[in-house]
Amino acid sequence: MSDKGTVILAYSGGLDTSCILVWLREQGYQVVAFMSNLGQDEDFEEAKKKATKLGAKEVVIEDQRKELVEEFVWPAVSGDLIYEGRYLLGTALARPCIVRGLIRVARRVGAGFISHGATGKGNDQIRFEFGCYALCPDIQVISPWKDPSFYHRFPGRPELFEYARQHDIPLPITPKAPWSIDANLIHISYESGILEDPATPAPPHLYLWTTDPEKAPQQAQQLTIAFREGVPYSVSVEGEGTTVHDPLEIFDTCNRIGAKHGVGRADLVENRCVGIKSRGVYETPGLSLLRSAHMDLESLCMDREVKKMKDYLSTRMAQQVYNGLWYSPEFEFTRSCVQKAENVVTGSVQLSVYKGNVFVVKREAPISLYNQELVSMDVQGEYEPIDASGFIRINAVRLKEYQRVKTLMEHK
Amino acid sequence: MSDKGTVILAYSGGLDTSCILVWLREQGYQVVAFMSNLGQDEDFEEAKKKATKLGAKEVVIEDQRKELVEEFVWPAVSGDLIYEGRYLLGTALARPCIVRGLIRVARRVGAGFISHGATGKGNDQIRFEFGCYALCPDIQVISPWKDPSFYHRFPGRPELFEYARQHDIPLPITPKAPWSIDANLIHISYESGILEDPATPAPPHLYLWTTDPEKAPQQAQQLTIAFREGVPYSVSVEGEGTTVHDPLEIFDTCNRIGAKHGVGRADLVENRCVGIKSRGVYETPGLSLLRSAHMDLESLCMDREVKKMKDYLSTRMAQQVYNGLWYSPEFEFTRSCVQKAENVVTGSVQLSVYKGNVFVVKREAPISLYNQELVSMDVQGEYEPIDASGFIRINAVRLKEYQRVKTLMEHK
Amino acid sequence: MSDKGTVILAYSGGLDTSCILVWLREQGYQVVAFMSNLGQDEDFEEAKKKATKLGAKEVVIEDQRKELVEEFVWPAVSGDLIYEGRYLLGTALARPCIVRGLIRVARRVGAGFISHGATGKGNDQIRFEFGCYALCPDIQVISPWKDPSFYHRFPGRPELFEYARQHDIPLPITPKAPWSIDANLIHISYESGILEDPATPAPPHLYLWTTDPEKAPQQAQQLTIAFREGVPYSVSVEGEGTTVHDPLEIFDTCNRIGAKHGVGRADLVENRCVGIKSRGVYETPGLSLLRSAHMDLESLCMDREVKKMKDYLSTRMAQQVYNGLWYSPEFEFTRSCVQKAENVVTGSVQLSVYKGNVFVVKREAPISLYNQELVSMDVQGEYEPIDASGFIRINAVRLKEYQRVKTLMEHK
Amino acid sequence: MSDKGTVILAYSGGLDTSCILVWLREQGYQVVAFMSNLGQDEDFEEAKKKATKLGAKEVVIEDQRKELVEEFVWPAVSGDLIYEGRYLLGTALARPCIVRGLIRVARRVGAGFISHGATGKGNDQIRFEFGCYALCPDIQVISPWKDPSFYHRFPGRPELFEYARQHDIPLPITPKAPWSIDANLIHISYESGILEDPATPAPPHLYLWTTDPEKAPQQAQQLTIAFREGVPYSVSVEGEGTTVHDPLEIFDTCNRIGAKHGVGRADLVENRCVGIKSRGVYETPGLSLLRSAHMDLESLCMDREVKKMKDYLSTRMAQQVYNGLWYSPEFEFTRSCVQKAENVVTGSVQLSVYKGNVFVVKREAPISLYNQELVSMDVQGEYEPIDASGFIRINAVRLKEYQRVKTLMEHK
Repeated sequence: MSDKGTVILAYSGGLDTSCILVWLREQGYQVVAFMSNLGQDEDFEEAKKKATKLGAKEVVIEDQRKELVEEFVWPAVSGDLIYEGRYLLGTALARPCIVRGLIRVARRVGAGFISHGATGKGNDQIRFEFGCYALCPDIQVISPWKDPSFYHRFPGRPELFEYARQHDIPLPITPKAPWSIDANLIHISYESGILEDPATPAPPHLYLWTTDPEKAPQQAQQLTIAFREGVPYSVSVEGEGTTVHDPLEIFDTCNRIGAKHGVGRADLVENRCVGIKSRGVYETPGLSLLRSAHMDLESLCMDREVKKMKDYLSTRMAQQVYNGLWYSPEFEFTRSCVQKAENVVTGSVQLSVYKGNVFVVKREAPISLYNQELVSMDVQGEYEPIDASGFIRINAVRLKEYQRVKTLMEHK
Repeated sequence: MSDKGTVILAYSGGLDTSCILVWLREQGYQVVAFMSNLGQDEDFEEAKKKATKLGAKEVVIEDQRKELVEEFVWPAVSGDLIYEGRYLLGTALARPCIVRGLIRVARRVGAGFISHGATGKGNDQIRFEFGCYALCPDIQVISPWKDPSFYHRFPGRPELFEYARQHDIPLPITPKAPWSIDANLIHISYESGILEDPATPAPPHLYLWTTDPEKAPQQAQQLTIAFREGVPYSVSVEGEGTTVHDPLEIFDTCNRIGAKHGVGRADLVENRCVGIKSRGVYETPGLSLLRSAHMDLESLCMDREVKKMKDYLSTRMAQQVYNGLWYSPEFEFTRSCVQKAENVVTGSVQLSVYKGNVFVVKREAPISLYNQELVSMDVQGEYEPIDASGFIRINAVRLKEYQRVKTLMEHK
Repeated sequence: MSDKGTVILAYSGGLDTSCILVWLREQGYQVVAFMSNLGQDEDFEEAKKKATKLGAKEVVIEDQRKELVEEFVWPAVSGDLIYEGRYLLGTALARPCIVRGLIRVARRVGAGFISHGATGKGNDQIRFEFGCYALCPDIQVISPWKDPSFYHRFPGRPELFEYARQHDIPLPITPKAPWSIDANLIHISYESGILEDPATPAPPHLYLWTTDPEKAPQQAQQLTIAFREGVPYSVSVEGEGTTVHDPLEIFDTCNRIGAKHGVGRADLVENRCVGIKSRGVYETPGLSLLRSAHMDLESLCMDREVKKMKDYLSTRMAQQVYNGLWYSPEFEFTRSCVQKAENVVTGSVQLSVYKGNVFVVKREAPISLYNQELVSMDVQGEYEPIDASGFIRINAVRLKEYQRVKTLMEHK
Repeated sequence: MSDKGTVILAYSGGLDTSCILVWLREQGYQVVAFMSNLGQDEDFEEAKKKATKLGAKEVVIEDQRKELVEEFVWPAVSGDLIYEGRYLLGTALARPCIVRGLIRVARRVGAGFISHGATGKGNDQIRFEFGCYALCPDIQVISPWKDPSFYHRFPGRPELFEYARQHDIPLPITPKAPWSIDANLIHISYESGILEDPATPAPPHLYLWTTDPEKAPQQAQQLTIAFREGVPYSVSVEGEGTTVHDPLEIFDTCNRIGAKHGVGRADLVENRCVGIKSRGVYETPGLSLLRSAHMDLESLCMDREVKKMKDYLSTRMAQQVYNGLWYSPEFEFTRSCVQKAENVVTGSVQLSVYKGNVFVVKREAPISLYNQELVSMDVQGEYEPIDASGFIRINAVRLKEYQRVKTLMEHK
């Protein structure tokens, strides 16, 4: 077998990347299997044994949970990132984190190739490959599901199963769900299979993480989330006594409380990077809580006009993340602008969660633009009502002019 | 008493506008009281008697409910209008509808003045006055709460009560809630009083319309909303047999189902037109349902790039509505653009409502950009995976270049 | 030779497309050569003979000048289209016009293929192919300069010359300029060759159309351009007596006067569709004049806030045109929005042109938002100066609040 | 005469502010006259004598030229600031600079009032007053032209002349031009009077600074402007030998060369802050040169996608400056974002100026995203043409889908 060099394979432990591992070796590559622990439910030691048995030269397992929370989730919270008004970007945030791990390993072992099991119609291929090319322009990406010699050989699952049998690749014991799943500590996403029909309801048993709201606790629960300069700083949960400050613990707590109360489910149609419309179902408990709290505090602390521009940039930023552009000049730019806008967002918000709902109960900030005296209907404060007449009449100059012209145009 | 001419007074039946009615007469005006039926809970006949007794030359009661739904709520649904990400504009949509009524009456009776009871720190003064000036540039607005001779005479409630007593203006029997309320068929809003402190939770008994989610039915309920070119077309509710097509009935049905299940509560801080931050609490049951359904259908039907621009315009449109600019060149423009974008939004969405939640269950459109074969992981369709490699590599050209420059800059 | 079917080839008459014609026949295709007359300096009959001699089954020459002006240039004028602040899109506007011609012929003769000579790094390949795929999704595009079997065979000019010699393809007699040229009635563009170095000045003799400003007439010349609803309606030139109304004549007149006075030269760096930065030199005499006049009239007629949104949409529209998206949902949308905004832009502008300069001298509109009485410093009109104090103080509420918070933050 | 306290008056030396000085003293204020040297043509010592004679308690003359260039003009250059596509903001940039001077003096002498001579329909009142309120929320502004007791007393020039005669205020010797003039080292602006009719051409003798292009030198002249991180760094002029680095000298040099060659004239209609359309004529020689050079270098150095967002922010920033919001949260934000984007804009641009034209000749940057090998038509570089086919076909997926839907909709 010729040696074409070393490939770092983003290895999931599943059937597809196991087959790819063997196939890459067949093609003459040495394979280093890379597994990122992003909080998904996975037996990493078992997967390591499996990869080793399939011929991996080395298996690297990296715990990237802390990195994911601090360097990818927190900016998403600061930016109120949401794609097309509904998707919280759970997968899109994880991919550039994995890419960083892949490139670190590639650099360490001197590998010239990266490979992954993402398909040719999806978003993840783009997020993996943009990230790799951006961080390491000389790297070459091997993407079997876009390589005709691979995808013509495996046009369907039967051919893949046959190949697995031939190469002693263990087949999954449990029957595959009729949809595909991606999980990390941010969310679980479900797509494909029966979900491809947007008119087919997602079955209730699909959701693996959050409690069905109908079965969630009968009692609402309160929690208070604090932020410093737009970044989560602490969380304390009613009835739990302690206040948590460690980023990973904050996020875990939010996930735990959110999931318990059925928070964060979404069923939607989105536009993929490649321009295809696709239906996705998501559960994102903790980030949903953090987002509600952060947005509320922001409205208390941030100037109206700054907020408008920050919202414009956040929309772009979410599109950039979705489209795999985490490591891009435009993302660097939007991120630094958002950070600048966030420097006033310090304070805390009390939420109440109940059967899928997240209610904001109250919010406080040591320093904010909210001026109770100024807004009060009972106190005049430094506000002179007659000034508002001038304000209105000057603004109305333009409106009256327009009316004048409209009348002329109608009579011409 | 001199005759300064006729004023059309936006009369609510409450203490403030009753005092204003009397005060206007004192100033030498003849007063026509105008009441708009926008679905609020009000005894219009009683109010009419009261205004007549206080000296109104005429009392006009106009049923504007249908007008409000068809000409103000429906465009808000088409535009997915939301202010600062959370407020559904219930009051802001009603004001230009009332203005139209006021101006109709002013034109009919030949009045040169309009008056209203909105305060000098709020948004409604602006919405009333911009509307009046825009529709009828020659009209003069009398705004007592911005007139020093009025507001210095009535610096607080006691002075107003005293004036009421002196002029036989009936005082409210029930003690006033410690906040102010505005209601119409779109929403009920609560602000001021104890709510002025954003850290004071809204008490549960504040909400007058929607069921407390904790007390809402234990069973989810399904409903299906259909749209034609972005406009609500019908609604059918699980267990109710009939499909409703009349706009007012569609909206009433959505309100009834939403309210029953505790849908549409929001507690937030917003930025008023005059630049003051203010806390508002809202319940908007029906529009919340319609908004969820419409947004979902839109994602199925509308092109990704058109949606981005439509969203930009919708954000502007919501700001325009909030800021009282319904009758402005910019609103005419955004509205017509949004309408153009909506011409593909035809189909239906099934929702499930449960204790405050609105879940999208499924969506269908006779014609849509969603192509099940194209998105399918099991069918290649007309999509050639290898093309995606080219797509990625070409897009990565720019990312690689940036990396090259960054490296150079770091080493300079 | 096998018959793979019929190809419509966008034929320029030059060496590249002549070689491609022969090569396509070698591959087994029948070739229909399509030439579009867009006003470029070309001997179409000579080119027709050449193509026929090289084996074209049919040669179609279409005069698309009128179509180009009315359906492509006029929308660009209405939209004030400009890419990255400087490029007037002369080539980008012509491509979708040619595509329409190509598809018309393909439909008529029942061809399944389109071919063109655009290179793999440029913009035109994208504009041609997006247009073809959009108008005729079933068409297949043959792009030799992106086909390895072609571009590996012809890695440089010598190989192409050799091929030409072997196949009796006439070689260009005049030595090729050290840059490439694209010309149509909108502009002449120059790029590549020695221009690839952005630090190399464009030599003065490069410009083929416009007079060198230093050699242009010593006397300024006046012309008046009229618009109806944003579209050029007539032009009259000082000293020429007649007023021209025919679209093609209007544009020819603007080109003639602009070119005579050295108007419309630009030397710039732009970002290509594929993400590469490229240097381009352009001369665009007539469109430069029309753009100056149109923008000026727009400022007289269009509301300030509508203009802001129109500008946002125009920027997108220019990017869409540059990126080959003329036949796209987003372009249809922006174009219809811009048209809506333009319905008030009726009037005329007098320009003075002199040695490269375009000066606006005066502008008039039968109906406009410009109100001389209102703006006058000598007449109070309906404007009450004291109102401006209220306007300022209310707007300053927010600024004062921010100052309060800044002071608090600095002292915390 | 009662002592109402001390007013700092923005004193120009002209008739209006002289009358205001006297009038303020009549009202019982002590007046400190503040004159800012912003490069305008003014005999400051003479003006000082005049103000002293008219009763000013103190006359402060501050040389703010360096401050104006470094802290106001340079950010405008970095931001490519332009209002409504044509106005370079010469007056709008100067106002916040003067405000800073006014507030410095107010703080030093403990004054509680600021006064100015700006009119009630114009922009400058807003720029002065927003600035004062923002920098010093407790200050009170006395704006005589918005005070009915002043403007009703002086409804026209004759009343002002009469008042001047009564109070020994020297009347202007030279007859006033039939328009008003504002001058500083950035520009001279002309408005009002006969210019109020947008159809009246500006007479050639109106321009006080720039040479009439028809009388400018017959020879073009070259100059090279260098930038560091978006800020002007040096300028060297052909035939002058030295390279200038001092900011004020750089700007003076650009002004001198620009004015000599007739660069920077503009005649336009703009939308004032108060919503009135107004005609303005400007000459801005140096900033026009700097803007051309900076924009050109930016296109060489800045990433395409960053540029798009920077342009969005620059448009906002220009509106903010125009609308008097220099000292606002939104301006602080946009300015810091623009600065971030500019950190790659280092290099130099050679311009050629000739009779009103500014031509870019060439540009260079030590490090830039321009990659000559990548763009070259003769070198393949790391670019694989076949990739572009994939790029196109994937992007065309969406276009084909749209065509499919359009066809369906047309046939329904």
